[in-house]
Amino acid sequence: MIYDVNSIREDFPILKRKIHGRELVYFDNAATTQRPKQVVEAIAKFYLYYNANVHRGFHTLSQEASQLFEESYEEIAKFINGNMEETILTINTTDAINIVAYGWGLRNLKKGDEIVTTVMEHHSNMLPWRELAELTGAKIKYVDITEDGELNYKDLESKITERTKIVAFTLASNVVGTINDYKKIVNLAHSVEAIVIADGAQYVPHVETDVKKMDVDFLAFSGHKMLGPTGIGILWGKKEILEEMKPFRVGGDTIKDVTLDNVVWHDLPWRFDAGTPHIAGVIGLAEAVRYLKKIGMDGVRAHDIELVKHTIKLMKEIDDIEILGPLDPEKRTGLVAFNIKGLHHHIVAKALDMYGIAVRSGGHCAHPLHYRLNYQGSVRASYYIYNTKEEVDYFVEKLQKIISVKERLATEPVENVCTGT
Amino acid sequence: MIYDVNSIREDFPILKRKIHGRELVYFDNAATTQRPKQVVEAIAKFYLYYNANVHRGFHTLSQEASQLFEESYEEIAKFINGNMEETILTINTTDAINIVAYGWGLRNLKKGDEIVTTVMEHHSNMLPWRELAELTGAKIKYVDITEDGELNYKDLESKITERTKIVAFTLASNVVGTINDYKKIVNLAHSVEAIVIADGAQYVPHVETDVKKMDVDFLAFSGHKMLGPTGIGILWGKKEILEEMKPFRVGGDTIKDVTLDNVVWHDLPWRFDAGTPHIAGVIGLAEAVRYLKKIGMDGVRAHDIELVKHTIKLMKEIDDIEILGPLDPEKRTGLVAFNIKGLHHHIVAKALDMYGIAVRSGGHCAHPLHYRLNYQGSVRASYYIYNTKEEVDYFVEKLQKIISVKERLATEPVENVCTGT
Repeated sequence: MIYDVNSIREDFPILKRKIHGRELVYFDNAATTQRPKQVVEAIAKFYLYYNANVHRGFHTLSQEASQLFEESYEEIAKFINGNMEETILTINTTDAINIVAYGWGLRNLKKGDEIVTTVMEHHSNMLPWRELAELTGAKIKYVDITEDGELNYKDLESKITERTKIVAFTLASNVVGTINDYKKIVNLAHSVEAIVIADGAQYVPHVETDVKKMDVDFLAFSGHKMLGPTGIGILWGKKEILEEMKPFRVGGDTIKDVTLDNVVWHDLPWRFDAGTPHIAGVIGLAEAVRYLKKIGMDGVRAHDIELVKHTIKLMKEIDDIEILGPLDPEKRTGLVAFNIKGLHHHIVAKALDMYGIAVRSGGHCAHPLHYRLNYQGSVRASYYIYNTKEEVDYFVEKLQKIISVKERLATEPVENVCTGT
Repeated sequence: MIYDVNSIREDFPILKRKIHGRELVYFDNAATTQRPKQVVEAIAKFYLYYNANVHRGFHTLSQEASQLFEESYEEIAKFINGNMEETILTINTTDAINIVAYGWGLRNLKKGDEIVTTVMEHHSNMLPWRELAELTGAKIKYVDITEDGELNYKDLESKITERTKIVAFTLASNVVGTINDYKKIVNLAHSVEAIVIADGAQYVPHVETDVKKMDVDFLAFSGHKMLGPTGIGILWGKKEILEEMKPFRVGGDTIKDVTLDNVVWHDLPWRFDAGTPHIAGVIGLAEAVRYLKKIGMDGVRAHDIELVKHTIKLMKEIDDIEILGPLDPEKRTGLVAFNIKGLHHHIVAKALDMYGIAVRSGGHCAHPLHYRLNYQGSVRASYYIYNTKEEVDYFVEKLQKIISVKERLATEPVENVCTGT
């Protein structure tokens, strides 16, 4: 399919909204993307005409809903070249990583064991490991980054030892944008028989993902960052590990039978699906996956690179802008975080909003990374399939305008709040 | 407001569907209710015109979405007379109970302590406590029921002792329908300083609920059983307990600041909200709450009682029908589970489906309760605001038809599957 950004934009009514009298430029996609009409229609159709609880009740509606649910589930699993039985429904990436930390970690780690993660991580791939370390007595080690925001692979080599039981890393940073070399990381981890958890929140929506090729043990990602509904994320895990794992959340539908003395757990993946699942979430995410497949993930990736390349080219010409992370667009996912010298990130975001441009500012739930780079936060422009080079032009033009009045702007009061994601 | 079931039915397009040529009679509301147009429209409007991630990012869309999200959150909290800071978002009731078991229980229970629950519980209010017992060495005690399916309060008194740390009970059974006497249970539990967790999945959608009056320590319920979206449940907890509790799931947005050595947790309720929340779920559930408030929970309750009374009256005239639970409609929530002598519950459900009637059959995720009552399962007709006496008439008429050919039906093959919820 030829990449036709204008026809894509037609599917997203929100892009026609006016913000302070200007057409919306939505550059906060790393926080959450927008949804095409097709996804919203699939959800609405389910609720209004096909809704029932699943688990194959005997009435027609439940049978229909179960079939729709399972087909959707399969569609999502196939998107990362996984099977349904290895694919677990979660709330979001954070929840997925917590499931591994509590569900696998609590029962497999002990004092003296080590968990290796990186300073590049989102808090969601850091705090669960710290909780696990606290509960088990295991130790955490953080792999450092290089000055240009890439992972320091030499440091990684030195930190992985025979005591390493878990290696948790991001496939793509939500701040510096860096795409990490999963092959190197997975090979090192597996050489000491550690399990590998990859945070795919900023990667799966942007780069074709094949869990078999990657050979990670767990992969976590979120639906709402790839055109899907809120409240639905995925934890993919290798079958042999999931089979050994006890369900983490237990209750309705995780079982085949329960007596007061015994439990027979259900088959995979159902044993991890406690209570009524987010049925509409699965149906909506499957529709999002179909939408992305229609465009083609190669097209999505090429479009990202084009926008990032254009952004970096324009920004490099402006003295007052400091870009976080590598300058080679091929090394990045579809986002550019930056700071304007002498201006607080929140002030920049607020000023851009007056031009209709939506960016996120703050620590982006990656405070240690910002501190490592000697920043308190940053402004982040993050792109997706419907963004255009013209929007980037407009955005950088407005940045120059902001810089031209920065002395005045710098005196504005700043609420120093944590704005998340 | 006068209770006008016909005008209510207009808001639920699915009720006009034909199943096997007959108009749908949807009696599977204890598994999940249907959604009115208003709820679906609120979700669609958010996704298509107002979508952004929350946590008060600085751009207009995020500010708007945050405001809509927080207003919705407040609306849900007020529905049970709670405050937002005491109200935690979960996937569903099951997830909510797991949060208490892991989040509070793991850090507060030890060997020798006791957890009291009942044989009347859904697996979701039983298995998490068994996991907790296994992990801590605490002991579980099950309160028995009387022959007519009410809680045995004498047994309850004997099981609660100075060693009791947690009392977990259902406000209304999803099988026998019994509404339990929360005052008695709460008083007994608090007299030994145990905390009380109430499973409100089958109660909050049906009976006006006031957490302050109830004086429980935790209350769990699900949005999808009260006209709301899937993937959203609520755990309400007393502030003084939540303040002492560490967040269970950790990661993005649970914190104010993170360094490599330290974490400053966020205020309530945000510290429990790890990662991007189910924003559309909160917005949809608030709309569902508004819908229920417009009808009035008194009206909802009266309508339930009317339908249950009518059902029991008609069923009692039929020899072959055995009703599970108390026969006094005032003692029940809006459901009637039963068996036809000599017919497997799944066969009855399948036969009813041929007449367009959707009921659930099986163990309803309450296997120990069925075994206690000497059943392998049951057929359950569960009602909600849009059901009518005429539907009940039609349903019982078809039951009689099924009974009239039961010798033939009894020879049909049965898939003995667990159909959940």
